[in-house]
Amino acid sequence: GRRNIAVCNCKGLAKLSTADAVEVKENGRSRHKILTLKTMNPQVKAVEYAVRGPIVIKAGEIEKELQQGIKKPFSEVIKANIGDAHAMGQQPITFLRQVVALCTYPELLDSPSFPEDAKRRAERILQSCGGHSLDTGAYSASQGLDCIREDVAMYMKKRDGGVPVDPNNIYLTTGASDGIANILKLLVSGEGNSRTGVMIPIPQYPLYSAAISELGAVQINYYLDEENCWALDVNELRRAVNQAKEYCDPKVVCLINPGNPTGRISTCSQREISVHFSTQCFFFFFLNKVYQDNVYAEGCQFHSFKKVLYEMGPEYFSSVELASFHSTSKGYMGECGYRGGYMEVIHLDPEVKAQLVKLLSVRLCPPVPGQAAMDVVVNPPQPGEESYEQFIKNGGIEIGNTGEKTFVTLSLFNMGRQLRINWAKAKCQSDFPNPVNTRFPNDLLKAHGMPPDMFYCMRLLEQTGICVVPGSGFGQKEGTYHFR
Amino acid sequence: GRRNIAVCNCKGLAKLSTADAVEVKENGRSRHKILTLKTMNPQVKAVEYAVRGPIVIKAGEIEKELQQGIKKPFSEVIKANIGDAHAMGQQPITFLRQVVALCTYPELLDSPSFPEDAKRRAERILQSCGGHSLDTGAYSASQGLDCIREDVAMYMKKRDGGVPVDPNNIYLTTGASDGIANILKLLVSGEGNSRTGVMIPIPQYPLYSAAISELGAVQINYYLDEENCWALDVNELRRAVNQAKEYCDPKVVCLINPGNPTGRISTCSQREISVHFSTQCFFFFFLNKVYQDNVYAEGCQFHSFKKVLYEMGPEYFSSVELASFHSTSKGYMGECGYRGGYMEVIHLDPEVKAQLVKLLSVRLCPPVPGQAAMDVVVNPPQPGEESYEQFIKNGGIEIGNTGEKTFVTLSLFNMGRQLRINWAKAKCQSDFPNPVNTRFPNDLLKAHGMPPDMFYCMRLLEQTGICVVPGSGFGQKEGTYHFR
Repeated sequence: GRRNIAVCNCKGLAKLSTADAVEVKENGRSRHKILTLKTMNPQVKAVEYAVRGPIVIKAGEIEKELQQGIKKPFSEVIKANIGDAHAMGQQPITFLRQVVALCTYPELLDSPSFPEDAKRRAERILQSCGGHSLDTGAYSASQGLDCIREDVAMYMKKRDGGVPVDPNNIYLTTGASDGIANILKLLVSGEGNSRTGVMIPIPQYPLYSAAISELGAVQINYYLDEENCWALDVNELRRAVNQAKEYCDPKVVCLINPGNPTGRISTCSQREISVHFSTQCFFFFFLNKVYQDNVYAEGCQFHSFKKVLYEMGPEYFSSVELASFHSTSKGYMGECGYRGGYMEVIHLDPEVKAQLVKLLSVRLCPPVPGQAAMDVVVNPPQPGEESYEQFIKNGGIEIGNTGEKTFVTLSLFNMGRQLRINWAKAKCQSDFPNPVNTRFPNDLLKAHGMPPDMFYCMRLLEQTGICVVPGSGFGQKEGTYHFR
Repeated sequence: GRRNIAVCNCKGLAKLSTADAVEVKENGRSRHKILTLKTMNPQVKAVEYAVRGPIVIKAGEIEKELQQGIKKPFSEVIKANIGDAHAMGQQPITFLRQVVALCTYPELLDSPSFPEDAKRRAERILQSCGGHSLDTGAYSASQGLDCIREDVAMYMKKRDGGVPVDPNNIYLTTGASDGIANILKLLVSGEGNSRTGVMIPIPQYPLYSAAISELGAVQINYYLDEENCWALDVNELRRAVNQAKEYCDPKVVCLINPGNPTGRISTCSQREISVHFSTQCFFFFFLNKVYQDNVYAEGCQFHSFKKVLYEMGPEYFSSVELASFHSTSKGYMGECGYRGGYMEVIHLDPEVKAQLVKLLSVRLCPPVPGQAAMDVVVNPPQPGEESYEQFIKNGGIEIGNTGEKTFVTLSLFNMGRQLRINWAKAKCQSDFPNPVNTRFPNDLLKAHGMPPDMFYCMRLLEQTGICVVPGSGFGQKEGTYHFR
């Protein structure tokens, strides 16, 4: 019977264990811990992520002290370390929340207190939900709900003035970072000199460097031109790729447009250069455009890289593999908590596409409420619809008018609300200033054992309650110091 | 000015590009594709995930045919390939949806049509949300909202009869698979013979083998004893680990209890054996208990591995590193679409814990609606509360009564609803039957070019509309054939 088996197994095991205990010691593994800094995955250890680093931990401590009534020269901490509009007090878009609430609790479809257009959106999404459910409680297809991918395709087509979009190339994701990590995962291969190299701008948003470290790819820095409003300089791209070829296989170029943390909007001329660079040097392009709806300065407008490619003709467009990423977390809606997002991946080898779908299916599906939120972002109330006025009052914007001013921008919040006025005035000003180059005498810094940017950010936090992140977290030329 | 820079950069690039084009050809990389099956990440290529594999694709095709009015011997496809209770027609728990809807659209807190206890839960969650928001639209802490982690700790403590739980060891996740992947990520290291080995039961739920492939760890199979109701046999564990030491460093043991796909509930004696195995051989334990609320057979009850360890005394308990995983997707609530989950990680080296928090912070936070859903799962309506009756009517269960029958179980749905009666009668019956060992003459199988289990599942699908998955997707002894 089972009992006997248990007993004899126990005896059997006792012998085994002693033997193992010795072996284990010989391997020099700690008797008490399997998992230590020494034994853990070195690629994970190498990951850095400043936007939630030491400054942010300090900010949390100060917030707790304020709650405990400890007096400070300020009454609240302004967490400008990360683009989190709602945490900064932005009110949500009513229509978006109505649609997601209706999808969550469909009994509300009978409630007179919800507008008809919100109900129509919700009913359409529920119809698209899995199996018998007509309900957000079931897994969706791993690629995301069909009707939402169709809405995303329509949104992109409108944004790009008619450039075709195939819904089968749209994948809903758990925020943009999830999509970026999965595409990068496909691309990482090779050992030593043939290991996949990934070119990222410096300064960059650190999820790129983090994903590169985690996957053991090779990070290739190309430096943006601070003297020229953080412009992309192709000579620098050229230097970076040629140097990198000595120690890796450069395969991927990441473009962050609008720039994060720089706030730079690429001009057409610069993107044409990138196009040459891609079509003649064969790079897989990562296009981060999560701030495409945050273009606010007069005269600046977002032009998608894909659109420029397309307009340059098939000899450029047809051969370029590219993945572009968007998110519900930024833009006018700033819905960070829902972890919604999408990516478009074009000209992907069909066999690789099957591999991508398989990879996504292991995580089953993106959160369905986040998918619903994404749908409202790309399919907001239209003029003439019941909720349109309310939507515009909430700070929503019309699709196609992404060039118009909106004050819900990462830069504004990241600079702290009191700087808003300057920013609204600013045109091509940097979102990544360097006020700390000459502010502190070196001996004072040495005394605190911190680099100038970290010291500046710590002091700013302690004295004003404004939490910004040192430039070191985003990358900066040696000897220069910034904050975001 | 910028225009001039653009021009000169363009010229500069032209030279570069030609040179590159040649180099690229020399590297033998396809002129048209950077990313191909040949160049892609081989670890991703190695991933297998049957529960969304060819059978499921076929099921989707048949569903479309039914929609088009094509006649079949059945009127609907029963997707029994994956535990998705809502897709199988289960109604959601009203209380859970009310709380999540209230968190999504707090204006509803003023609505008389929502019960007070649901409003109290929602207000508490909103209070715990980030920054100024009191709103699910802001990122939460990467580890999850404090108040929900506290509720999880109370739930686990109650389930384990008072075994202490520290909320700081609780991490909210994007479903269980996200937690499993992240902890495994920490553990993978070493090259060749010292590469991390992970012991998994065969049959297993394929997210384990998928995560192992993706991370390039070494999969070590230990076979469950089919003749003994898929019991865990320590002699088999012993064989597996000793054999594995020749080609890797076995560091991790995964226990799936209740078993998936076997439906087996471990008995105490078996878990004591596992305890010896852990404390004397130093393994990091992965405990998958997502079906802990699905124990329905008379006389069977779920006992947590941690509780058994604890009761055996500090010499066992204090040294064992273990991570246990739970999810909103299974259990009586079956909320798959919200991607909610949590893990408890105990006795983790403090330095490694900091690394884990950093790793989680790169993905920012789990979806907040899923966190709210998780809160209701661990903190459901209590006797005397307004929503309690409705909750029980919905099929909810009282915490602590996890031994009582509930018919919302993976096994029932995975076997197709018409088999429910047999299953409810069944006591220690397997959830992973092998009816196909001798059913088909070999020549017939050869004619179809499929292994017997795949052939059986395809035929079952085409003739009855029931979609089950071949045993090969979960692992099975050579020459045996099963389905789930």
